[in-house]
Amino acid sequence: MQSTMMQYPLTLVHVLERAGRYFRNSQIVSRMPDRSLHRCTYADFYRRSRQLASALTKAGLRRGDRVATLMWNHYAHLEAYFGVPVAGGVVHTLNLRLYPEDIAYIANDAADRFLIVDDILLPLLEKFSDGVQFEKVFVVPLTGQPVAAPYHDYEALLAAESGEFAYPEMDENEPAAMCYTSGTTGRPPGVVYSHRSIVLHSMATLVGDSFGIKSTDVLLPVVPMFHVLSWGLPHAAVMVGSKFVMPGPHLDAESLVELCETERVTFATGVPTVWMSVLQLLEQCPNKRNLVPGMRVGIGGSAAPESMIRAFDKFGVTVIHAWGMTETSPIATVSTLKPHLRTLPEDERYAIRARAGYALPWVDMRVVDDEGAVVASDGHAMGEIQVRGPFVTGSYHNKEVDPAKFTADGWLRTGDVATIDSEGYIKICDRTKDLIKSGGEWISSVDLENAIMAHPAVAEASVIAVPHQKWAERPMAFVVLKPQMEVSAKEIEEFIAPRFAKWWLPDEYVFVEAIPRTSTGKFLKRSLREMAAKRKMETAAE
Amino acid sequence: MQSTMMQYPLTLVHVLERAGRYFRNSQIVSRMPDRSLHRCTYADFYRRSRQLASALTKAGLRRGDRVATLMWNHYAHLEAYFGVPVAGGVVHTLNLRLYPEDIAYIANDAADRFLIVDDILLPLLEKFSDGVQFEKVFVVPLTGQPVAAPYHDYEALLAAESGEFAYPEMDENEPAAMCYTSGTTGRPPGVVYSHRSIVLHSMATLVGDSFGIKSTDVLLPVVPMFHVLSWGLPHAAVMVGSKFVMPGPHLDAESLVELCETERVTFATGVPTVWMSVLQLLEQCPNKRNLVPGMRVGIGGSAAPESMIRAFDKFGVTVIHAWGMTETSPIATVSTLKPHLRTLPEDERYAIRARAGYALPWVDMRVVDDEGAVVASDGHAMGEIQVRGPFVTGSYHNKEVDPAKFTADGWLRTGDVATIDSEGYIKICDRTKDLIKSGGEWISSVDLENAIMAHPAVAEASVIAVPHQKWAERPMAFVVLKPQMEVSAKEIEEFIAPRFAKWWLPDEYVFVEAIPRTSTGKFLKRSLREMAAKRKMETAAE
Repeated sequence: MQSTMMQYPLTLVHVLERAGRYFRNSQIVSRMPDRSLHRCTYADFYRRSRQLASALTKAGLRRGDRVATLMWNHYAHLEAYFGVPVAGGVVHTLNLRLYPEDIAYIANDAADRFLIVDDILLPLLEKFSDGVQFEKVFVVPLTGQPVAAPYHDYEALLAAESGEFAYPEMDENEPAAMCYTSGTTGRPPGVVYSHRSIVLHSMATLVGDSFGIKSTDVLLPVVPMFHVLSWGLPHAAVMVGSKFVMPGPHLDAESLVELCETERVTFATGVPTVWMSVLQLLEQCPNKRNLVPGMRVGIGGSAAPESMIRAFDKFGVTVIHAWGMTETSPIATVSTLKPHLRTLPEDERYAIRARAGYALPWVDMRVVDDEGAVVASDGHAMGEIQVRGPFVTGSYHNKEVDPAKFTADGWLRTGDVATIDSEGYIKICDRTKDLIKSGGEWISSVDLENAIMAHPAVAEASVIAVPHQKWAERPMAFVVLKPQMEVSAKEIEEFIAPRFAKWWLPDEYVFVEAIPRTSTGKFLKRSLREMAAKRKMETAAE
Repeated sequence: MQSTMMQYPLTLVHVLERAGRYFRNSQIVSRMPDRSLHRCTYADFYRRSRQLASALTKAGLRRGDRVATLMWNHYAHLEAYFGVPVAGGVVHTLNLRLYPEDIAYIANDAADRFLIVDDILLPLLEKFSDGVQFEKVFVVPLTGQPVAAPYHDYEALLAAESGEFAYPEMDENEPAAMCYTSGTTGRPPGVVYSHRSIVLHSMATLVGDSFGIKSTDVLLPVVPMFHVLSWGLPHAAVMVGSKFVMPGPHLDAESLVELCETERVTFATGVPTVWMSVLQLLEQCPNKRNLVPGMRVGIGGSAAPESMIRAFDKFGVTVIHAWGMTETSPIATVSTLKPHLRTLPEDERYAIRARAGYALPWVDMRVVDDEGAVVASDGHAMGEIQVRGPFVTGSYHNKEVDPAKFTADGWLRTGDVATIDSEGYIKICDRTKDLIKSGGEWISSVDLENAIMAHPAVAEASVIAVPHQKWAERPMAFVVLKPQMEVSAKEIEEFIAPRFAKWWLPDEYVFVEAIPRTSTGKFLKRSLREMAAKRKMETAAE
């Protein structure tokens, strides 16, 4: 027996056409380099995305060709998100925070054929342009300055097109977009998203128990669009017609809060460090700000400390914790409270909200120990998170499938270590490589960091493993204090001691001005390890 | 270039496993024939669905075999919804409101191999059992009476299984469920849903701008589970873990309102006639009922009059208008207000909410005139709605593709006539066969019905075309008055006249006790046409 259902591909063509049909009045707001606000509608977005598709096709774009972007979050980047894939191309978002030579490596590995670049990023492009061979470079004149040869003017490119465009027939499994992981060691590998994976991911984030995005929402993706498709927020927004507000290059707390206030943002996303700085700003003048009551902030990329979730609640802002990675499109879990957990005492509710949540529809998840056995769902046993699903990568671009990354039965090994409770909520304990193994037992650096960051004088904390003759490894904490605050190592230890077994407590606290970060805002533990090693050598030399 | 994403099928296996993993505490409530409430949890549902899958497999179920159900809405029907497809079978829901010989025809056309039947429906089964050949019949002992040979006891069947079950490997395009259309003429054809179509449809209804179902919702499907998969509500509920309340055979207004009150229902579904009777009950004792504030009711199957939407608002109940058909899984449009329409004057907002809405994600829709041209989106031009998408049928079971049902370019011809406004909201004017063509112009029977039903003395109205020598066809109205109410034809005409061109007004008003209905609660216009013809003959004979 056969199903009688139509064979209809899940592609971005449908999403773009839907937007052009139903959401022509929805607003798109972009912060420009000069801080002014650029405003347009979905009708403009629809027309210009199709103009871009048409222009790229005339420029010779073939099926599957990569079109790189080197851009901040703004209307033209959104056009590239759709205009490239509906023409049969693959939009490849280059991470402008990487070292120029790394960007060049990635552009070459992906064999990017065309590039669309913000005019204000031309100085960055010129740092690595010797190492790459883009056939054509289109410059978005954000500043209004004329575009000089050999570059092509993005606006002129679009202006030459009527907006009429006949989409090529497409299979839903064809590639649509590409991102490289932000690995902190070695050359990052590329992940290639399909039309199907992008569309399914956006639907999974739309449902009420994940991000619950609706047409009435006003979205602010602070996550860069060059970072894992901005968590799929652009696709989710366009699917339902939400007002879409983009911060451009202005990611400081004051600019973000101002944008939230004036554009009436209801849902924003970002990594904890960005929102920590927003929180500090709110705390400086608690009565002066005018955020939309009930505003939600999706936080991921690294763990949001419980103290931060509590602090935002005081400002009427609900933090929704999420977890994922480039390989999972990226949202794989979201921490919303199931109905029967909403009546728990406040502390228990916060403890659950500080976990990473449970899996989105279509994501299969298991937590597996060193021997490959699924760990007990008791909230204590630690293991590696493994996932599979229609928006989880099964390989890397141009690479053999590596057994260190994928299990024999086809699951992605995420490299993140977690516990899982009886309700299925995971709690990220660490990256496998950041776990501290002391005397044969695991210590979670993330748990220690969150406990230390709950101290009112502490702005940031990062804990790493340092080699130890007897215990193999021991924890060392790096601490950044808030301005004008003072606290001793002993005071911090007394503060966190009640929460941990004694052997979990760090052997040393190092007070620093700042903790170095990766290009995506995560703590750069590699660099801390180097600092620790240097410290040890200096101590030995004394 | 290839996408690196995993090939992961969208099947009901994932949905069931997700429920068993994350929603074990969610509640399932079923009204039994004796009016008592049967309570169980998703943990029970998960275990029993797998027991059913295991038992059917041992009973010899092969891939694609049809397992028919003849059941009301309750826990065991929900088990069949999942237990059959995850075992590789196809659940075929028989409509118990059809004539017995029609049920037999449908069971034979589908080649149903097994049957699961409520014990209270055995008298119905016995009316057509001579005409069918089920290999085994499993009886659900809802009343607690023992099950006698030749029937098998459903509970004994499940009790023999441990609940361990190894799912067969499945492709997402394999068939999972089957329904026959409720056509009022000729033998109804069958539609076969796939795992993919069911899962995608449930996701499309979950999003906030359609039904917006969440884990915190308490759902009451008044739509029978033998009618187009109960609009996909069972699948949507299980996907997110909503409490699920089923009315069993008790569909009278008092039973439904009581269930809404005691189980704290937040979202219910049904056809207008059911909710009209609920409304009348609420109006009888406006201060005595205790519905959840903000309760939503999804209404479809036929048009919900604007007057009904307004009346429910007074009780804090939001009617969400939807449109679809067996061929579209069934929800294809939902009428929720886009953000910029929420500030319109009240009358305009109600007018939009009374339309059928705009298309769900993944549904392509166009309105096409007699010549095949897309009509203007002006809210006036009428045409046939045509749709396509991953949960729209492209054919009928065991039938050649009929050009009267499908266009040459692959769209379903729905047979529903609508206008479409500039925002993309459609307004159903009629079935193509119910439209009245008077003097070469179309008159919408639905518009006339809604206008007449807005009169405070009118309970129901149905308008049909009667043959006319000069104008080809003219409208005739059948009217049911509310109890103890009186109104003349002239008064109704004066009431509706301001809304229509004069030539739209019915030539005659016939007051009747009741309007005959189809098995799904729609007005049976065929029967009214027979009444009209008989009337004419009688008049001629006088």
